[in-house]
Amino acid sequence: MNTLIKKEFNSIVGDSRFRDRLEDLLSYSYDAFTVESVPDLVLLPVSTAEISAILKVASEHQIPVTARGAGSSICGAPVPVNGGIVLSMTMMNRILETNTPDRYCIVQPGVINGDLQAELAKSAFFYPPDPGSMAFSTIGGNLAQNAGGPRCLKYGVTSDYVLGMEVVLASGDVIRFGSRNVKDVTGYRLSGLFCGSEGTLGVVTEITLKVVPLPEAYRTVLAVFNDLDDSAATVSDIIGAGILPAALELLDKVLINTVEDANNIGLPREAEGLLLIEVDGSEEQVEKELALIVEKVLSNNAVDIQQARTAEERDNLWQARRSLYPSMARLKPNCIVEDATVPTSKVPEMIRGIRAIIDKYKLLCGIAAHAGDGNMHPLIACDLRDHDEMERVEKAIEEIFELAMANNGTLSGEHGIGIAKRKYLSMAIDKPTLKFMHTLKQAVDPHGILNPGKAI
Amino acid sequence: MNTLIKKEFNSIVGDSRFRDRLEDLLSYSYDAFTVESVPDLVLLPVSTAEISAILKVASEHQIPVTARGAGSSICGAPVPVNGGIVLSMTMMNRILETNTPDRYCIVQPGVINGDLQAELAKSAFFYPPDPGSMAFSTIGGNLAQNAGGPRCLKYGVTSDYVLGMEVVLASGDVIRFGSRNVKDVTGYRLSGLFCGSEGTLGVVTEITLKVVPLPEAYRTVLAVFNDLDDSAATVSDIIGAGILPAALELLDKVLINTVEDANNIGLPREAEGLLLIEVDGSEEQVEKELALIVEKVLSNNAVDIQQARTAEERDNLWQARRSLYPSMARLKPNCIVEDATVPTSKVPEMIRGIRAIIDKYKLLCGIAAHAGDGNMHPLIACDLRDHDEMERVEKAIEEIFELAMANNGTLSGEHGIGIAKRKYLSMAIDKPTLKFMHTLKQAVDPHGILNPGKAI
Repeated sequence: MNTLIKKEFNSIVGDSRFRDRLEDLLSYSYDAFTVESVPDLVLLPVSTAEISAILKVASEHQIPVTARGAGSSICGAPVPVNGGIVLSMTMMNRILETNTPDRYCIVQPGVINGDLQAELAKSAFFYPPDPGSMAFSTIGGNLAQNAGGPRCLKYGVTSDYVLGMEVVLASGDVIRFGSRNVKDVTGYRLSGLFCGSEGTLGVVTEITLKVVPLPEAYRTVLAVFNDLDDSAATVSDIIGAGILPAALELLDKVLINTVEDANNIGLPREAEGLLLIEVDGSEEQVEKELALIVEKVLSNNAVDIQQARTAEERDNLWQARRSLYPSMARLKPNCIVEDATVPTSKVPEMIRGIRAIIDKYKLLCGIAAHAGDGNMHPLIACDLRDHDEMERVEKAIEEIFELAMANNGTLSGEHGIGIAKRKYLSMAIDKPTLKFMHTLKQAVDPHGILNPGKAI
Repeated sequence: MNTLIKKEFNSIVGDSRFRDRLEDLLSYSYDAFTVESVPDLVLLPVSTAEISAILKVASEHQIPVTARGAGSSICGAPVPVNGGIVLSMTMMNRILETNTPDRYCIVQPGVINGDLQAELAKSAFFYPPDPGSMAFSTIGGNLAQNAGGPRCLKYGVTSDYVLGMEVVLASGDVIRFGSRNVKDVTGYRLSGLFCGSEGTLGVVTEITLKVVPLPEAYRTVLAVFNDLDDSAATVSDIIGAGILPAALELLDKVLINTVEDANNIGLPREAEGLLLIEVDGSEEQVEKELALIVEKVLSNNAVDIQQARTAEERDNLWQARRSLYPSMARLKPNCIVEDATVPTSKVPEMIRGIRAIIDKYKLLCGIAAHAGDGNMHPLIACDLRDHDEMERVEKAIEEIFELAMANNGTLSGEHGIGIAKRKYLSMAIDKPTLKFMHTLKQAVDPHGILNPGKAI
């Protein structure tokens, strides 16, 4: 990028929010995926007007622009693969309004999910999407990836909570759509299109979110099974009984042992499956559901069962689930997490199939799942420097995707496509449909400057 | 349309599903709005392949194509204002799959909402969106308008339940997106874009819907107030207490009296406001919520309160709400229903404001509202042949929209834009945003053959 153009950008944001030294740029060259690419420039805008001005200049010179939140994506979505500008949205981190009587809040994209939760909790409300990264990931990033999380089984994903947006287009034009109203059918429903589009259609500068009352009570059950099919049958039985838990997490034997190795919390090493089940609602409701869940768990031959009724007990039971990633990450330099998703009833087949693939390629992999919504999370511990191993990892992932597709599944439930899964897109999306997506992209961003090489 | 082109269409569907006689065409010239326009041709396709073939020919000759479900829209959405072809989707009315363990079903667009509910009820599941027309409106039409209904306060609108679709584009190309999975972030989230696009972007030929377990129990409360502000305060108090009812319907004095005139069911004629409140869930949950609701109703000075615990009692309490339209329709030849929507806390202001506008223009209007989500339904009884009255109706509607916009509201909560509200769009959507919507439309349907003159 030549000095004159750099000067143009500098004049928009000023020295203090302009970065072009390599040591600064490096911090914006990667996310939690495996690919790195250094941008030419990092800008830290603080307003819609600045972003509009930046995009006008970028559009004129056809310079790629990649918006970035906390960089916690695990599919390479915010990696500037073609260089150009990274727009760090972290300084646009104000909660503009919380209106819990009218059940909405308005935030800038750089607000951290956990910070929003803390603010809402003051009025006994919450924003349901809870990606594993919620303590540090931003609402803008959550929106770009249409993030999910454990409690999305009951409450739905990010796109279910977006009521309205302000977006700066590639041209620099600013558009606003949706409103503060839960019901709104005025014009096209653009929020659906922007959620999950990974910054390829526009830069989101303001988001109106629906919020809901915090439940009065929680009950958590941890159940251990000696047969994986029994744990899967428990999942089906619970949902079949009309209970929609706020979380229904499954861990396989490898993960049980890996977590136990790392934390020594007393998990039974011979067990084949562990379920963490949480319900929320009124005291009466959760007590009733707890009793029903315990009944289903026992009738499916659980060998151990623990219940939590207090916040502290609950916290203890979540320890195994929470420590999955750090426990696996101890084993090898890298840990790749996939998230192929299938209808709930296909979970046992997926687990057996993934296990067979992993064994075939002699990999170190534990399998977790948001089992209630079929969102599988195989965690593959590996070493990027080991080319032979990485080739096997690649083949295994491809076969896992093939298995998911054969079971009416999809490539990604909540992590996104980014650069990690683009080459597999044709497994899930046929040619005319992919062409249609590119037609939309082309119409909206004719020079292809917005986060090129991602999502579709 | 010349005979040769007609023959091309006839060769696709055959004589038995081809209509070009005026007496047949007239049935497809109107919906429940006030404008009529006769198409040149009506075709009744039975397959995606037929629709693809029809659109290829229509595209070649640039003939408008308007898909139509039951024709129960009240905004003119399925009226073929530029003539051309009406595609009646009523013969594509098969439920292709119901899979309640995996919480989805797959339907053709001509399936009637009520028929789907009946089928799902066999497995104790349901599909929440419940527009007033659900006994006769189709899922395809519901999707085109992104229909709501009373229980959408708790459960969300149509777009919250669409997991996947098959769509025939203007070119005749067939695209498929989404999947059977509640979580799916593979490629752009196109279902969000197609929901509510009123058939202007493609013809939907298959829909995968999320379904949820039927609640175990219902409790219904009918409460009468002598002060409208008390009824509005009750709404706020209930939602503020963390209860999200399955319905929270409000009727004003005009409607109370109109319903009483027509049905003689014993409603108190002096009352200023009536609330119909319904909760659903487990027996324990609804009993607890019922007690809380009764407490809130009484503390807001209700002068009468009735409770329903059985299906029969529930049915009785719903009678007043159900008979709104027929009761108003008795008074004049026509009844126009608007649906401006505002944040919940603005409902009292909207009711007072609408009342003042109605008085100013000396119109006969009752006000109902899905009060819990701020979705107002003024019902204006009028006579289309009375030009002076219709001019006043027009002015009143415009002022109601202005009032809604001034209260952070929107033009339409669930009925759609169609042709009825296009001229008001600029109140709610600014120029760059409307231009963006037209950019998408232009990219997808370059000749503008799909339901021209609607939605945007």
